[in-house]
Amino acid sequence: MTYTSEALQQLVEEFSQLPGVGKKSAQRMALYILKQPREDVLRMAKALVNVKDRIKYCTSCSNITEVDPCPICSSAKRDRATICVVEEPNDVIALEKTNEFRGLYHVLGGALSPLDGIGPEELKVNELLTRMTNGVTEVILAMNPNIEGEATTIYLSRLLKPLGVRVTRIARGLPMGGDLEFADEATLSRALEGRIAL
Amino acid sequence: MTYTSEALQQLVEEFSQLPGVGKKSAQRMALYILKQPREDVLRMAKALVNVKDRIKYCTSCSNITEVDPCPICSSAKRDRATICVVEEPNDVIALEKTNEFRGLYHVLGGALSPLDGIGPEELKVNELLTRMTNGVTEVILAMNPNIEGEATTIYLSRLLKPLGVRVTRIARGLPMGGDLEFADEATLSRALEGRIAL
Repeated sequence: MTYTSEALQQLVEEFSQLPGVGKKSAQRMALYILKQPREDVLRMAKALVNVKDRIKYCTSCSNITEVDPCPICSSAKRDRATICVVEEPNDVIALEKTNEFRGLYHVLGGALSPLDGIGPEELKVNELLTRMTNGVTEVILAMNPNIEGEATTIYLSRLLKPLGVRVTRIARGLPMGGDLEFADEATLSRALEGRIAL
Repeated sequence: MTYTSEALQQLVEEFSQLPGVGKKSAQRMALYILKQPREDVLRMAKALVNVKDRIKYCTSCSNITEVDPCPICSSAKRDRATICVVEEPNDVIALEKTNEFRGLYHVLGGALSPLDGIGPEELKVNELLTRMTNGVTEVILAMNPNIEGEATTIYLSRLLKPLGVRVTRIARGLPMGGDLEFADEATLSRALEGRIAL
């Protein structure tokens, strides 16, 4: 036997399901849990269930929220003329951390990937189009810089441009703090392509 | 606001308490939880609470267990004449994985560390001494190879030898699959010291 306790074994298995957590880290986490006060562990268990029970999707932007519409969509401080389209809720979190963007979001729920059977119907594309009627002047496409993201960007821009809305996409180039010498060719050529006048 | 949901924020905070989990991984885990079926999340929450509620310490070896004495102490297949002393329950797990050791264990609950206020009274040292009466012929000391572990090894061997029991300690040397060239000086000198005749 490896574990003298079935409960411990079970928790190790549960933890190792989490992304980026291997068997060894899961075991370390489980033994850490064992040393915590019971009320702390109960709080964590409650937090897990709460996430499933309280979180739903905003009917306007499809982002995760506890109230519908979500706090961003219902905020009076946000610029309703600009919509930033992203793939997943974590992209919204990342963009909100910059404190730069004051418009609204639209979460597609993924990117186009025909090989995985993900077409426009699997994404919130129609929901995005219906939002174009409410005085939106610019749509910023902020897909991930990979093949699926690029395909989605091209697809959406073709769909949106005829509606008379300004369609932009976020820049690709050298990451801040990076080193030109270590940048890959694809990034460098995008950086050259996207050069701006000083 | 960074998170549009307080429940998500809470779970991210709970996850980032776990050892080796930063804010970014915690967020990734929380968003993963959000995508899981409710019953899977409930099972994980239950596993967390079970670990606290079901696991106690074996009154004989102080290892974690759900039944007292633990499955190892109560097993008829184990050699009761040999006791391997370790610092923590995860050391027992590591040793059990080798399938080499068929004796019993004794979990000290840490190592001597006067600077942190951990003396023999804070560890299960007296409990170890009381076990010496039951026909034990060898005690294997398997402390971690660091200063606290070495101090504990020396302390315990001085305490146990007068009782007429054979006291050994596990070997220090080159780890398997390692490279002599990259071994540190301390490891190499221990490997030389511990050389055995062929």
